[in-house]
Amino acid sequence: MATVISPVADVCRSAKRAAAALAQIDTVVKDRALESIAAALEARLEEILAANARDMQAGVEADIGDALLDRLRLDDARVAGIARAVREIAALADPVGEVISGERLPNGLDVRKVRVPLGVVAVVYEARPNVTIDAASLCLKSGNAIVLRGSSSASHSNAALAQIAAEAAVAAGLPQGSVNLLAGGGHDELAELATQDRTIDLIIPRGGERLKEALQAVATVPVIYAASGNCHVYVDASADLDQAEAIVINAKTQRPGVCNAAETLLVHAACAAELIPRLVRSLGAAGVLLRGDDRTLALAAAEAEQAASGAGADAVRAVVQEAQEEDWETEYLSLTLAVRVVDSLQEAIEHITRYGSGHSEAIVTKDVSAARAFQRGVDAACVYVNASTRFTDGGEFGMGAEIGNSTQKLHARGPIGLRELCTFKYVVEGDGQVRA
Amino acid sequence: MATVISPVADVCRSAKRAAAALAQIDTVVKDRALESIAAALEARLEEILAANARDMQAGVEADIGDALLDRLRLDDARVAGIARAVREIAALADPVGEVISGERLPNGLDVRKVRVPLGVVAVVYEARPNVTIDAASLCLKSGNAIVLRGSSSASHSNAALAQIAAEAAVAAGLPQGSVNLLAGGGHDELAELATQDRTIDLIIPRGGERLKEALQAVATVPVIYAASGNCHVYVDASADLDQAEAIVINAKTQRPGVCNAAETLLVHAACAAELIPRLVRSLGAAGVLLRGDDRTLALAAAEAEQAASGAGADAVRAVVQEAQEEDWETEYLSLTLAVRVVDSLQEAIEHITRYGSGHSEAIVTKDVSAARAFQRGVDAACVYVNASTRFTDGGEFGMGAEIGNSTQKLHARGPIGLRELCTFKYVVEGDGQVRA
Repeated sequence: MATVISPVADVCRSAKRAAAALAQIDTVVKDRALESIAAALEARLEEILAANARDMQAGVEADIGDALLDRLRLDDARVAGIARAVREIAALADPVGEVISGERLPNGLDVRKVRVPLGVVAVVYEARPNVTIDAASLCLKSGNAIVLRGSSSASHSNAALAQIAAEAAVAAGLPQGSVNLLAGGGHDELAELATQDRTIDLIIPRGGERLKEALQAVATVPVIYAASGNCHVYVDASADLDQAEAIVINAKTQRPGVCNAAETLLVHAACAAELIPRLVRSLGAAGVLLRGDDRTLALAAAEAEQAASGAGADAVRAVVQEAQEEDWETEYLSLTLAVRVVDSLQEAIEHITRYGSGHSEAIVTKDVSAARAFQRGVDAACVYVNASTRFTDGGEFGMGAEIGNSTQKLHARGPIGLRELCTFKYVVEGDGQVRA
Repeated sequence: MATVISPVADVCRSAKRAAAALAQIDTVVKDRALESIAAALEARLEEILAANARDMQAGVEADIGDALLDRLRLDDARVAGIARAVREIAALADPVGEVISGERLPNGLDVRKVRVPLGVVAVVYEARPNVTIDAASLCLKSGNAIVLRGSSSASHSNAALAQIAAEAAVAAGLPQGSVNLLAGGGHDELAELATQDRTIDLIIPRGGERLKEALQAVATVPVIYAASGNCHVYVDASADLDQAEAIVINAKTQRPGVCNAAETLLVHAACAAELIPRLVRSLGAAGVLLRGDDRTLALAAAEAEQAASGAGADAVRAVVQEAQEEDWETEYLSLTLAVRVVDSLQEAIEHITRYGSGHSEAIVTKDVSAARAFQRGVDAACVYVNASTRFTDGGEFGMGAEIGNSTQKLHARGPIGLRELCTFKYVVEGDGQVRA
C-alpha cells in the first residue's frame, strides 16, 4: 500500500496517475468500492479502536483538553456512523458524466458541457478522524483521487482509517494511489503540498483561521476556503413575531457551534419594542447572552423595570450586555447573540454588507417587496426568507454529504458536495467541420 | 470622472461601492449604458485617434516593432469595430438573475440557485486598446464593476477609451466607479492590485507568461489564467483522410497565432504512410514547416525520393525537419507543426496527457469506440471529434463575446463569457421553517 509515509511530491504524483484511471471508472465500480470500504471499517473495528486508543492516550498525556479529546475519540457507535455515511455517499447520484447543458451550433457541431472529476483533491483537516473517511468517500464517488493530511494528534487513527480505505478501494478495483495519507508532519509538509500545482487540482482546508493563513501565504494550488459564518437574522417591520422568535431561537441555539448559526440579530425599530422583550425572556431561558446596542439595552431595561419581582429584573439584566464594535464582527460559535435595532431594511442590508461573511443571511417578513429587496441586496451564499439560517447544508439542500461550505464566489459557493468536486469539459462532435 | 490616475486601493474601494449598486440594476438600464458607450465612441472618434497617435508616436520612438505597433494602432474602422462589439454585447442575454436550478425541499423550503455578478473584476492586459472597451462592456453587462490595468505603451489610448466609457456609463444611469482604469505604472501597481482581496473578486490577466508569473508570485485575489494552448490533432487509424487533411490544415493555418490553433499532429501508424506524404505537400504549400519524429522523417524522405524532379524533392525536404523533445512542448503560434506517428489511440492519449495544456484536443476517426475513448480519456477544456480545434471560442460556442479562455479547472474552463463573470447565490424561501 505504501500510502502512509512518503515524500509529498511522490504521493501526489501517484495520486495523479490514479486520478487519470479513476476518471474513467464506472459508477457501479466506485459504489462497490465504497461498500467495500464500509464493510472493511466494520470488519476491522478493533484495529481502528486500537489505533485511536494510542492517539487518545497521547492526547491525555499532552493535556489537549476535553473538547479536543471528544473530537478525537472513536468508539463502536462512531465507527458504525462513519461506515453508514460511506454507504449514504455510495447511494448518491454520480456527478461524473452529467450533461450540464448542450446544444447544436448553427454549423452542425453538437456541443455538450459534461461534468468530469477535478483530478486530485487534497483535504487538510484537524482532529476529527471521521473526516479521513468522509472526504475519501466523497472524492472517490466523484472520481477524484485524494491526498489527506490530518493533524498529528490523530495520526494513528487517520493512518488506520486511510489504510483500510486504500486497501478496500484497491481490492474492489480502484487504482493504486486513489487514497493517500501524508504523515501529518508540520508546516513544511503543508507548504510542500500547497505548491504541488502540477499534480494537485484543489486543496480544501477544514480547520481554523491559522490553517487558512498558513495556506494563503504559500499555496499555488487553488484552495477553496471553508467558511467562517457571521450570519444575521433580520426581523423586518412587517414580520410575524411568533415566526421571528422561533427562527431566531433556532438559528442561535439549535447548534451554536456551527458556521450557519446566527451571530447577530437585527430588528426593525417598528417591532423592536414588542419583539426584543420577548426575545430577552425566551433566549435568556435558552441560556443565550445578548450583546445589544443602545436601543436594545433601553428596551431590556424597561422590561426589567416592569418585572414582577426583583429577581425577575435581575434575570433580565443578566441576559443583556452592552455590545461593542467588535461584537458585530464576531463569530461567537456559542450561546451569545449580538442585537441591534435598525430603522430600515436598507440599514439592515448595509450592516450585513459591512459585517457579514457572505455565508447565510435571513429576513423574517410578511412584505413581498422587503423580501425581494433583501434577496437581491444581500450578497451571500445563502439568502433566506422566513426560514432559519441553519438550513445551509449539503444534506438539507438535497446535495447529499458535503465536504465543507464555501464563502468564496468562484467555483463553489455554499455547500461543497459531489458536483462541486468536479469540473467539466466541452465535448464537441462534428463531421469534418472547419472554421471559416 | 477621476477614474484614471488614483491610488490602487482607493480605485478598488470605489469599484466595490459601484458593484453593490450595479448588481441591482436592470438589464434595460445596462443595455442603454452600453449603447451610450458605443455612441460615445463614435461621437468622440477624433479624441480617441489623437490619444492613439500619441501612443503610436511613442511606440515608433521606442522602436517597439511593427507587430506591436499594429496591435496598438486605432483607426476609423477599428473604432467602429469596437463600437459594434459593444452593441453585440448589449444584445446578449443578461446572465444575472438566471435560475440555474431550483427545487422544493421535503420540508417545503423553495431553493433556487440564482446567477449574480461576481462584484469587481480586474482585467490586466497588454497592448491592444480595444480590450479596454471589450472587457468593460462584458463586465457591465454581467453587472460587475471593472478595474482595468493596461500597458504603459497604450496609456493614452486606454485613458481616452476608459474615460469615454466611464462618462457614458454614468450619463446612462450606472453608478460612479463602474469603470476604472489604473495608471499602468509598473510592477508595484500590479502587486498592489493583486492583493486587494477585500475589494476585488477576480483578476483576469490577458498577456503572456511573464504577466502570469508576476501575478502568481503575489496574488491573493483569485486569478483565472487565460490559457496557453498546446493543442493536438490526432488522426486515428480509421480516419477519413480527406476530412483529416482539411481539419489539420484548418487547425494549423486558419489563424496560427491563436491559442486554439493546433501545434502537434499525431498520426496512427496505420494511416501514416498515406496521410503524411499528402500533408507534407498540402501543408508545405500552405507555408507550414513540419518538425517530425523518425517515422515522419522516413515517410517524408521516401516521398522526396519519389518526387518527379530534384526541385520537387528539395521542396519536400525543405518542409520537414527533425523534431526535438522540446517541440512536443512548444506552442509555436506560427506556421510550424510538430508531427509524430503513434501505434495506438492509447499512445496518442498518453502523449496529449503528457504534453498538452488542457485547452483543445481533436480526434479524427470513423470509429465510435475510438471517439468515445478519446472523449473520456483526454482531460482538456474542449475535446473534439471530427472537427477543428479552432472552434474553441465563446462566439463559436454561442456564448457571445469572451474575455479569455481558461485552461483552469475551477470556476471557468474554456471560454470565459458573461456567465463565467458571475457567481450565484442560493435563495431560500419558507414560511417559518426551523431546523429540527
